[in-house]
Amino acid sequence: MKEMKLLENINELEQIKNSLFQKDFLLTWEKSDRELKLILEIAIILKQLREQNISPRVFDSGLAVSIFRDKSTRTRFSYASAANLLGLTVQDMDEEKSQISHGETVRETANMISFLTETIGIRDDMYLGEGNKYMREVADALDEGFQNGVLPSRPGIVNLQCDMDHPTQSLADLLHLQQHFGSLDELRGKKMVMSWAYSPSYGKPLSVPQGIIALMSRYGMNIELAYPEGYELIPEIVKVAKTNSRESGGTFNINNSMSDAVKDADIVYPKSWAPFHIMQQRTELLKQGDKDGLLNLEKTCLAQNAKHKNWEYDMQKMNLTKDGIALYMHCLPADISGVSCKLGEVSAGVFEKYRLLTYNEAGYKPYIIAAIMFTNKFEKPDQVLKKIIEKNHSRIL
Amino acid sequence: MKEMKLLENINELEQIKNSLFQKDFLLTWEKSDRELKLILEIAIILKQLREQNISPRVFDSGLAVSIFRDKSTRTRFSYASAANLLGLTVQDMDEEKSQISHGETVRETANMISFLTETIGIRDDMYLGEGNKYMREVADALDEGFQNGVLPSRPGIVNLQCDMDHPTQSLADLLHLQQHFGSLDELRGKKMVMSWAYSPSYGKPLSVPQGIIALMSRYGMNIELAYPEGYELIPEIVKVAKTNSRESGGTFNINNSMSDAVKDADIVYPKSWAPFHIMQQRTELLKQGDKDGLLNLEKTCLAQNAKHKNWEYDMQKMNLTKDGIALYMHCLPADISGVSCKLGEVSAGVFEKYRLLTYNEAGYKPYIIAAIMFTNKFEKPDQVLKKIIEKNHSRIL
Amino acid sequence: MKEMKLLENINELEQIKNSLFQKDFLLTWEKSDRELKLILEIAIILKQLREQNISPRVFDSGLAVSIFRDKSTRTRFSYASAANLLGLTVQDMDEEKSQISHGETVRETANMISFLTETIGIRDDMYLGEGNKYMREVADALDEGFQNGVLPSRPGIVNLQCDMDHPTQSLADLLHLQQHFGSLDELRGKKMVMSWAYSPSYGKPLSVPQGIIALMSRYGMNIELAYPEGYELIPEIVKVAKTNSRESGGTFNINNSMSDAVKDADIVYPKSWAPFHIMQQRTELLKQGDKDGLLNLEKTCLAQNAKHKNWEYDMQKMNLTKDGIALYMHCLPADISGVSCKLGEVSAGVFEKYRLLTYNEAGYKPYIIAAIMFTNKFEKPDQVLKKIIEKNHSRIL
Repeated sequence: MKEMKLLENINELEQIKNSLFQKDFLLTWEKSDRELKLILEIAIILKQLREQNISPRVFDSGLAVSIFRDKSTRTRFSYASAANLLGLTVQDMDEEKSQISHGETVRETANMISFLTETIGIRDDMYLGEGNKYMREVADALDEGFQNGVLPSRPGIVNLQCDMDHPTQSLADLLHLQQHFGSLDELRGKKMVMSWAYSPSYGKPLSVPQGIIALMSRYGMNIELAYPEGYELIPEIVKVAKTNSRESGGTFNINNSMSDAVKDADIVYPKSWAPFHIMQQRTELLKQGDKDGLLNLEKTCLAQNAKHKNWEYDMQKMNLTKDGIALYMHCLPADISGVSCKLGEVSAGVFEKYRLLTYNEAGYKPYIIAAIMFTNKFEKPDQVLKKIIEKNHSRIL
Repeated sequence: MKEMKLLENINELEQIKNSLFQKDFLLTWEKSDRELKLILEIAIILKQLREQNISPRVFDSGLAVSIFRDKSTRTRFSYASAANLLGLTVQDMDEEKSQISHGETVRETANMISFLTETIGIRDDMYLGEGNKYMREVADALDEGFQNGVLPSRPGIVNLQCDMDHPTQSLADLLHLQQHFGSLDELRGKKMVMSWAYSPSYGKPLSVPQGIIALMSRYGMNIELAYPEGYELIPEIVKVAKTNSRESGGTFNINNSMSDAVKDADIVYPKSWAPFHIMQQRTELLKQGDKDGLLNLEKTCLAQNAKHKNWEYDMQKMNLTKDGIALYMHCLPADISGVSCKLGEVSAGVFEKYRLLTYNEAGYKPYIIAAIMFTNKFEKPDQVLKKIIEKNHSRIL
Repeated sequence: MKEMKLLENINELEQIKNSLFQKDFLLTWEKSDRELKLILEIAIILKQLREQNISPRVFDSGLAVSIFRDKSTRTRFSYASAANLLGLTVQDMDEEKSQISHGETVRETANMISFLTETIGIRDDMYLGEGNKYMREVADALDEGFQNGVLPSRPGIVNLQCDMDHPTQSLADLLHLQQHFGSLDELRGKKMVMSWAYSPSYGKPLSVPQGIIALMSRYGMNIELAYPEGYELIPEIVKVAKTNSRESGGTFNINNSMSDAVKDADIVYPKSWAPFHIMQQRTELLKQGDKDGLLNLEKTCLAQNAKHKNWEYDMQKMNLTKDGIALYMHCLPADISGVSCKLGEVSAGVFEKYRLLTYNEAGYKPYIIAAIMFTNKFEKPDQVLKKIIEKNHSRIL
């Protein structure tokens, strides 16, 4: 029975040409709706296979390189889980232990770590204007190596968060919405608020709010981007969201009041970030190694944040949403008032109400990453999935 | 022939109901004699399978998370070996690299690292009253996640050393005794001395001596716990050992002289530890981050240690044991006089005589850990073992 | 067709008795020509198998321990790739995380990390007179453990660079030459220059130039070792190269001018190193922890280096080589003038011309390491390779 359902799901895939084959996954807005849909579908199929104890292992050996230029728990474990599920072994490229700490040797190193590598996951979100650029540098180096016979195959790059986008997060969030509301079609007409929220910390990347508005605007939702004046995102990406909204039949609006934005909302995603222009200054200071400058900037920025302590998502604001029960979302960890900090992004009451749902939300990420690896490696993913079902190899004996 | 012997061993297992299924392994004294016996038996069967080049790999994929909150070589490699033997991939939760260095986010993190995880090994032995508690916090979080559909299965927790017990060590030690003396029954009536020993270092955890007396007292041995006045262990655990001794038909005695204690002993386990009340103070100071206080405590404690330099286990003391050849045991590394320090727990002569036996002792740990993982995951371990033998898949081609 | 070619290659192997079985790989000059040839041949066969999507996985489980006492990217990834290809899981022995940071516990630790271990790769190149010695200490400890039943099998040691040799590098270089010129026989009579080159850094190990002259002198080439006066290598190893050259029908010459040395050369390997006697002083100072002494030595040494800035391999020197197109080689990363430093070992123009070839050169290392592991583990490698082809298990589904 269950197997039949799986086969049905896979047969539906057949209609879709896999244009993701051998393409890096760097920004959701470089991908078509069909491509994103394929990733969601394969993510769910891989999840079902594992739940039915059918091992979707497709590699007998091969490395999955990870390069984390910033701390990570969730994404690190999601990447490790995805690689492991498909049969790859994670090899971390620890720049402290390596000889490439600095310098323009990206081109060389990209090849040196790739002789038997199938996929490279990169997190590089510290410097505005740098992270995504770095990924493309790696990509170019891999292209050159592959085209010239240095590499036997071209490892696919997975963006595990950059300065512009956090696609594995936003796609996991989208899959969560799809599963929560029943389908992507059900999202049409829903009001989703991506809101800045107060945090006692500073310098949080822009990639999550940017990734969310750029992706969610594709499904006919009414997107409300809320932040206090001065907390702008990268203008080009806001533009992407606007265009997407128009094309998908939704709306896109910017609002400078959280209370106003959340009115009648179906979904609320309150999350702190640093203003775009502050991140630009910060990037400059980091490049120059200007410690005093950084401390001053932090002080200014925290003082500015402190003016917006009312941007906490609390019960009162929640009560303003549709039926008072809008779905709360977060990429975790959240700054929870009275729990992880004195005053933060969300009140303890609201968070607790949706806590397990945010865990579910996070639980899709390993499968999203696995689906990205899978579609990168197989031109005909439906046929490979069928082979997996035929083999019917148990994951646990 | 060998396969038949294996099948016999497995057929004997059948009688035992596996009540370890889906239960964490946190303290030996929470487990029944039958449960502990099952672990020893499965450890030996897994060892035999490997020796006969039959791969006991039962997982095609899956993570084995490790959380080491203290340094480790032996246990780290034992855990990695056990996971690898069964087909799991170790993913280390490095709190420095992660975002959870501090704070009360244990509940969340426990779920975030467990979406595709089969087992979590934890070492947390620095703070008295904290390590085991932390493991239970993780356990509660996993229970909640599993019960609410966040986690597809409930990863089993393996205590890799806490403030109270070091069960994988004490069970490896027990397996060593069983193999050395022929059977658990042969231990009945034997005299085993768990003795404090002098060390020039300070702050060694209590978990080994506690784990040893609490476990070994179950097999009808005459347990002698020896230490200089003031070097008490946690009273509740001493009480467990006393009760066990009474119930198993053995004896339990506390002695304040090493020379006296080792008289006619069959087994001697000389090992340094910090006094219970010092560890309590140390925990407080560590929590407060009181560096001066810690230095003062260390000074006092080392001065106190220095009064007991005669608590070295040397040839003279060894000669007092049964036939002068009591089995020497140690969890390693030992402080060996004239080798790893000027004066230590054991003289170079005694250690060298038993050195290879202590290596053998350590060699059981990977299989004990594998057996704990195995019994946690399979309700009917005998049937899974039979499947393994039927498949007869070579570990090395 | 391709499979037939593979079988032919394997049938040729049959003639060779595998005397590498259960022997460590510590220095190329301890190995016979036949043994080295076998490693090259198996490396190529493993590469072909992978290219034809036949998985050469021979281990269902097992650890490949790595001990890196110096930074590494290339070798770390090569080792990880080799282990993974054969089915082993890398477990890094991080001495900072372990309890053996210092001390004479090598013997014990070697056993503690080896209970389920198949191979141990070691890089230890910081101290002259120490690295190779350390590997032999580990080897002795493993011998003792294995002979006394502590270890179920004897893990093979792979020298991943020591103070004397860098055999996985030099063998990868040799395989590159073999593939580039068509065969080992084609190397006969070729002129190969191993030349010191200027670098703004200091203290680079001697193992690469030593490894190159000791290995390449076995194939009838005319070896020219070039360096400014005072930049001697370890005399005993130069002697090995001289003897090899005589016996193989080649020549060996020392030259104190790069321009002169490269005349009519077929192959040029320009690479910086620290003079032997400086490395001796450095080792002493490092042992004593004499920071001022080290700084002074560095200053003196850099000043001395600066006298030889004309030892850059540039277009002008390249034009002096045979037809102006001698094959340029480097173990990477190279100090490239105007790219990775102001003035370095090689001009940007020359490097760029051969850059992709140096990548190819590096690409052989994973297969060389895999072949070393393979020949260490299997007495009859040809039969195991035939089994692999028979099984014909796909690496990627």
